[in-house]
Amino acid sequence: MGASPATFKDATAIAGIGRTAFAGRLPDSGRALACHAVLAALDDAGIAPHEVDAFVSQGAEEADEAEVARSIGSGEITFAGRVPRGGGGCCTAVAQLAGAIVTGRASVGVAYRSRKQGGGPLPRPDRGGDAPVADRWTGPCGPLRPVDEMGLLARRYMHEYGATREHLFRVALACRNHANRNPAALLYGRPLTREAYLTARWISEPLCLFDTCPAAEGAVACVVVSARRARDCRRRPVYVHAAAQGLPAPHHRPGAVDPLTGPAWAAARRLWDTADFGPQDVAVAQIDDAFTPLVPLSLEGYGFCGRGEGAAFTEGGALENGGRLPLNTAGGGLGEAYLHGFNLVAEGVRQLRGTSTAQVPGAATCLVTAGEGVPTSALLLRS
Amino acid sequence: MGASPATFKDATAIAGIGRTAFAGRLPDSGRALACHAVLAALDDAGIAPHEVDAFVSQGAEEADEAEVARSIGSGEITFAGRVPRGGGGCCTAVAQLAGAIVTGRASVGVAYRSRKQGGGPLPRPDRGGDAPVADRWTGPCGPLRPVDEMGLLARRYMHEYGATREHLFRVALACRNHANRNPAALLYGRPLTREAYLTARWISEPLCLFDTCPAAEGAVACVVVSARRARDCRRRPVYVHAAAQGLPAPHHRPGAVDPLTGPAWAAARRLWDTADFGPQDVAVAQIDDAFTPLVPLSLEGYGFCGRGEGAAFTEGGALENGGRLPLNTAGGGLGEAYLHGFNLVAEGVRQLRGTSTAQVPGAATCLVTAGEGVPTSALLLRS
Repeated sequence: MGASPATFKDATAIAGIGRTAFAGRLPDSGRALACHAVLAALDDAGIAPHEVDAFVSQGAEEADEAEVARSIGSGEITFAGRVPRGGGGCCTAVAQLAGAIVTGRASVGVAYRSRKQGGGPLPRPDRGGDAPVADRWTGPCGPLRPVDEMGLLARRYMHEYGATREHLFRVALACRNHANRNPAALLYGRPLTREAYLTARWISEPLCLFDTCPAAEGAVACVVVSARRARDCRRRPVYVHAAAQGLPAPHHRPGAVDPLTGPAWAAARRLWDTADFGPQDVAVAQIDDAFTPLVPLSLEGYGFCGRGEGAAFTEGGALENGGRLPLNTAGGGLGEAYLHGFNLVAEGVRQLRGTSTAQVPGAATCLVTAGEGVPTSALLLRS
Repeated sequence: MGASPATFKDATAIAGIGRTAFAGRLPDSGRALACHAVLAALDDAGIAPHEVDAFVSQGAEEADEAEVARSIGSGEITFAGRVPRGGGGCCTAVAQLAGAIVTGRASVGVAYRSRKQGGGPLPRPDRGGDAPVADRWTGPCGPLRPVDEMGLLARRYMHEYGATREHLFRVALACRNHANRNPAALLYGRPLTREAYLTARWISEPLCLFDTCPAAEGAVACVVVSARRARDCRRRPVYVHAAAQGLPAPHHRPGAVDPLTGPAWAAARRLWDTADFGPQDVAVAQIDDAFTPLVPLSLEGYGFCGRGEGAAFTEGGALENGGRLPLNTAGGGLGEAYLHGFNLVAEGVRQLRGTSTAQVPGAATCLVTAGEGVPTSALLLRS
């Protein structure tokens, strides 16, 4: 009975993208931001709100799909999903819609991420038996911020493979350079220099201020429809060629078992297994950059280079436009806005439409990845 | 490009079910309960934990899929999803796995619901602009519990169609009678009498104590695989024939626009549209009974009778074994345990295996529905 991955490949497309302004703080509620982004994405596609019948949201607590549906005037909903974990879910949201459309459970889907600062419950390090298993190893040492975990991981990576802060700077610089070509970016007009990077204060050594993403509020949405429908929409379709989620056994977070073979490796296996092309054919990449070390690790995980070669890959302007693999061409989380990766999906679409502010000429394929929050996820888009 | 619903129909099956004990309070954490139920379901199917590659959870805050995966020793995860809204999601969880398997994104999926009392944030009626739109209508009158909304709805239903407390009693009685045949039920050994029902204290008039579900803790899980794989498993496969979610425009909760045409009507349209059989062919039903009035409303919504005829449908023992549509044969939320409907899925499977404690002879088709928390969801199972 037909469980063939072929039914998924290129069967759907992203027909519209939308976003709000990005800022450290915005006056609108999370729901209002979500609605603005969703309506902008529908307008971009040329699809009326009443045609929407599917919603998938990431971190939806403040922008519940029923509330958004009511507010934008969508039609009867036949599919609604949510994705786990803020950091790892952006590509999954698109994949859930694609899966619903391929199996006839929806026709016009909207995926969105609306982000407000300061929401959500505080961590509870005293939860005892209810604490996540992983936290029981680190909890006795005191609360560990994500940036502290990443700092430990970066230190190990530097130790094992000779990566240096110069490599991390190249990641930060590529993102910032691209942000400086994107007027919508949070850090537009704020160039980064090598000196500023190397003298910045530590956040969690060896990670400095510029290895981390500034706090951001805003929302991004995209519209997913069948490939057939997409060809009748306002914009050039961007096909969902392949999608994968990844959480390698034994399901520890980065740093806990093999710190340098994270979830990306699992997602990558699945992604390339179901794709018609490989890493060498990717024209441009939108790789989650919640922290700079994730980029060299992801370059390895997704097969752009061998293990331990991700830092060296960044040399010679490889991540800049004109380089081997232009990265985060709207600025990424480090420069455009940190919205758990949803803006990376939108920029992937712009590249394949030819409308990026840092356009890679003739780009026909794009890899988009989500964060290492597990399970992570990835998309291959093609024009 | 093949967006044919036919790819979904009967392409997957529930191969295993598992549950913990049900009680008002249990000592285990939510995660431990989830793991117990998942391992029991895998054992039931005869599938080893390391073969699991997909998880969908309902209300997963205390039983995160990565934590459960690690704890049971599952394999690399290629699909993970969550479903919105506790009350409406149980059937969606199964459908998400079925969709992932049909599109080649997973091979062995586990869906689970683990429920602990007292978790989750408290309502914040003072949220102002962040409050759900629907709450802004009722908020000024003070907090409204779900049972109060249902009380208003029941009153309207009684007024419009002549339904009486006798009808609601028949729903409560059918569930309790079935619970009394199921030693695992929370209310096993506690028969319900007409006198006890009619003299019980109000919870929200016209709803009394026995129109509502007792607080319960516990977990239920099921294993979903391809139909082909299911035929090699330990138990008789129970096929996922059709699945639907429903949230009718304009997306108000029950009671807000047309109170007597709730989400069930939207889910039902979708469900029967994609099924090879109709309501008249359903042998046994597991219908969400968070509150007794939901049963007559759902009987109407899912097409077992016309609008306004749901109360009369319950007469003459229709919901008891041997009646026209045996209901919630393990006791439902009212008698077995209120776990946001997940136990209804498991009982649907038992009926089609022929292993229910209130077995409907030769049952080959079962409708399972989720609560009216929107979007609601439904499954058609067949043997």
